Amino acid sequence: VPDADTLARLRARLRDLIGDDAVVDEPSELAHLGHDRCRGEWPVAPALAVLPRDTPSVQAVVRACVEAGVAMVPSGGRTGLTGAATATAGEVVVSLARMHRVLAVDPVGMTLRCQAGATVQAVCEAATAHGLLYPIDFAAKGSAHIAGSIATNAGGIRVLRYGMTRRWVMGLQVVLPTGECIETGGPLKKDNTGYDLTGLFVGAEGTLGLVTEATLELCVPPAATVVALCAVPDDPAIVALFTAVRSSGLPLSAFECFDERGLHHVQAHRGRAGEPGPLEAPAPRYVVVEIEVARPGAEARDAARASLTQVLTQASEAGALEDAVVAGSAREAAALWSLREDISESLHSHGPHKADVSLPIAQIVTFLARWRPLVAQTLPDVEAVVFGHVGDGNLHLNLLRPPSCEPTDFHRRMKAFDRETFELIAELGGSISAEHGIGLLKREHLHYSRSAAELQLMRQLKATLDPQGLMNPGKIFAAG
Amino acid sequence: VPDADTLARLRARLRDLIGDDAVVDEPSELAHLGHDRCRGEWPVAPALAVLPRDTPSVQAVVRACVEAGVAMVPSGGRTGLTGAATATAGEVVVSLARMHRVLAVDPVGMTLRCQAGATVQAVCEAATAHGLLYPIDFAAKGSAHIAGSIATNAGGIRVLRYGMTRRWVMGLQVVLPTGECIETGGPLKKDNTGYDLTGLFVGAEGTLGLVTEATLELCVPPAATVVALCAVPDDPAIVALFTAVRSSGLPLSAFECFDERGLHHVQAHRGRAGEPGPLEAPAPRYVVVEIEVARPGAEARDAARASLTQVLTQASEAGALEDAVVAGSAREAAALWSLREDISESLHSHGPHKADVSLPIAQIVTFLARWRPLVAQTLPDVEAVVFGHVGDGNLHLNLLRPPSCEPTDFHRRMKAFDRETFELIAELGGSISAEHGIGLLKREHLHYSRSAAELQLMRQLKATLDPQGLMNPGKIFAAG
Repeated sequence: VPDADTLARLRARLRDLIGDDAVVDEPSELAHLGHDRCRGEWPVAPALAVLPRDTPSVQAVVRACVEAGVAMVPSGGRTGLTGAATATAGEVVVSLARMHRVLAVDPVGMTLRCQAGATVQAVCEAATAHGLLYPIDFAAKGSAHIAGSIATNAGGIRVLRYGMTRRWVMGLQVVLPTGECIETGGPLKKDNTGYDLTGLFVGAEGTLGLVTEATLELCVPPAATVVALCAVPDDPAIVALFTAVRSSGLPLSAFECFDERGLHHVQAHRGRAGEPGPLEAPAPRYVVVEIEVARPGAEARDAARASLTQVLTQASEAGALEDAVVAGSAREAAALWSLREDISESLHSHGPHKADVSLPIAQIVTFLARWRPLVAQTLPDVEAVVFGHVGDGNLHLNLLRPPSCEPTDFHRRMKAFDRETFELIAELGGSISAEHGIGLLKREHLHYSRSAAELQLMRQLKATLDPQGLMNPGKIFAAG
Repeated sequence: VPDADTLARLRARLRDLIGDDAVVDEPSELAHLGHDRCRGEWPVAPALAVLPRDTPSVQAVVRACVEAGVAMVPSGGRTGLTGAATATAGEVVVSLARMHRVLAVDPVGMTLRCQAGATVQAVCEAATAHGLLYPIDFAAKGSAHIAGSIATNAGGIRVLRYGMTRRWVMGLQVVLPTGECIETGGPLKKDNTGYDLTGLFVGAEGTLGLVTEATLELCVPPAATVVALCAVPDDPAIVALFTAVRSSGLPLSAFECFDERGLHHVQAHRGRAGEPGPLEAPAPRYVVVEIEVARPGAEARDAARASLTQVLTQASEAGALEDAVVAGSAREAAALWSLREDISESLHSHGPHKADVSLPIAQIVTFLARWRPLVAQTLPDVEAVVFGHVGDGNLHLNLLRPPSCEPTDFHRRMKAFDRETFELIAELGGSISAEHGIGLLKREHLHYSRSAAELQLMRQLKATLDPQGLMNPGKIFAAG
């Protein structure tokens, strides 16, 4: 934590450099800018926040902080779920919210250039305005900044078809921890000229530098999609249905699962507890399948619908599903999707403890067959709700706080149980963080997914790029 | 260059460590193992070669070399085109040819694990045996080792659809320049746990460590493909046709162009110079279009053929093409493809000087409109043949040696002309190496594509991983 004199001098210097109105020290505004959506056992304690308007101002801020020996925390839309954008010890929060322009779209090369603070939604809309698609799609995209989505390698609901954010980042402008500005990569599909510097910054959670601009790849959007909801008897049938649909050659764009508890909570949240569900009879598990229709026109859409119906009928005959409905319109499709997408919100009032894990797809069944009884045995009063992206091997595990359990006590029990979950994940070759990252929340558990040799190499890279350890210290791994 | 004593001690030590038969110093065998397909102004001068049988032996070799202070050159199938696998100054060539097993295929997770020395072809065949596809496809794949394709981030003819090798590498086993063995990543589609160490080694040309095993992603193959050959009036029409076909939503898997000179040489090479070409009238430019048919059966194939015909007819009405033929069978498709694929071989006897460059697609027309006259003016006796992967912005420029020009003189003139080509490329925001890499061949030109700040960061990374500079020194950038 910097002392008062250092801080006063730095504040004055920053005001000189980037203007009075771009330096924030009003406590409530500071507290607001100083953390993301994950609140843990750490304090929220930024010393200052700055809101630079351009890249040279970002460089000036970094140089002034380095000179003063004060650490920085990059801040975007603050929708992260691990505390990676939280200032805990007198850091300067560097918010790029004022650098939010989409700078250019190249419709022939299908690339887009934007500033760090453009929201993912704004990028998607700029692509759409040119008849193109930026295919990263996750719940917080209306608030999340593109640079934050790059720093956390955001995933979402269409990773199965389009991959993670990493795949779409072609080039970056980064202000390094020295204050130097570097352009990596660019709008080229092929460029084998030395090391992949761009990839080093994707998913680095702002610990290696501040992303100030990005060049992104875009693609041709599908003409339409076809959506089905399937009732499935058990966890093994989910994976069996997935492999059946995938091997049919249908252009799958999403394959999402949830359990009967998830549907229950969505219906309860809508004030419809006990009413009939979307299919004739309740089922233990549900799957949302979405396929793409490449070519425009009703004929292509009808043909896709017929193909999906045929594949699901065959799967039904093989016992992988009990019932299914294929949406007949965009409105029906949205209604089916909402059953999956509304789960998180429906659980909110239960203060759920979440784990975002991934597994080799072939291990999903084994994991659930061991994890569900582990919950029942270790946490008999706790309800588990599981949903996830089957095609990515990514499960979101939710443990709901029983009304009888005090939040502090629940938190303590959950922290202890995390170890059991992560040990099982590690045993089955999975990851303790599929798409949310590490931040402050999971750094003590990183060893379950990364070897000592990997951690050492990561620390070496960190020390090479940020020898003074002033760029988002303590995130991913403990500082020093 | 190591002195004779050091070398004698190292040879004895290596024989002790990995066996007499795994250490090669017989001159002709050594010369054979000591270089790739690119022969330049550098000597081929390895001191020794080793052929370890497993990863611990690779580690032992690396440790012994480090102890002796002798540099190493990783060697795969030696099909590279930049000298990246060439030993020039008494290095130990580390060939992983004996580590060539495909270790496992996970058909549910669609991943494959193999050793470094498995050929790309062997990996493709192992995937096919499970009904899956490893989609990297380039001419040398029968000889190229998978680790070499990873170290050079190989591209090829289906990058438009499937991306470069980088996209398919999920995890690596790497013996670092210290001799330590590290496992990075693994068979998980989503794993946001710290820096992307895997990506650091892809495309690093063996300068950061020796890749000894790899986990690769596989995908569902298309049921079939449909291929067309189009006659196109000029370079702008090539790009216009590309954007028209792409925006139609057809699932494009290749879009390759070549000029009339390319067709001429293929026909001459087949002893058919002057005979009618594949279309009614000769055309200035040709394009091979390939689309995928996802679902099996004649009906789906016929529908795809009809769709492609419709899109090409519309493009013809818009003036983007003069004539086209859609292959009616796999045999016809192979015949059309061969017109593009046989160009390289047909040029071989002309000792062509090659450049592998890329551009933003929107700049291809501008580039060719300036480069073709530049050749005509600067090299009036030299014939230029251009072909390439339009959808990737990747052009292969070939300049043929006139019989009247001595090879040495030709080489000198080509080296001088390279500068003019690369300056134009740099001005238009392109890359001096799209898919071949840098190696020894292009390191003096790397500054055309990478800034001083990028080069400095690359050198910092190199120094961090290889502080003694013993792992493939002098490749990508000059040693020291």
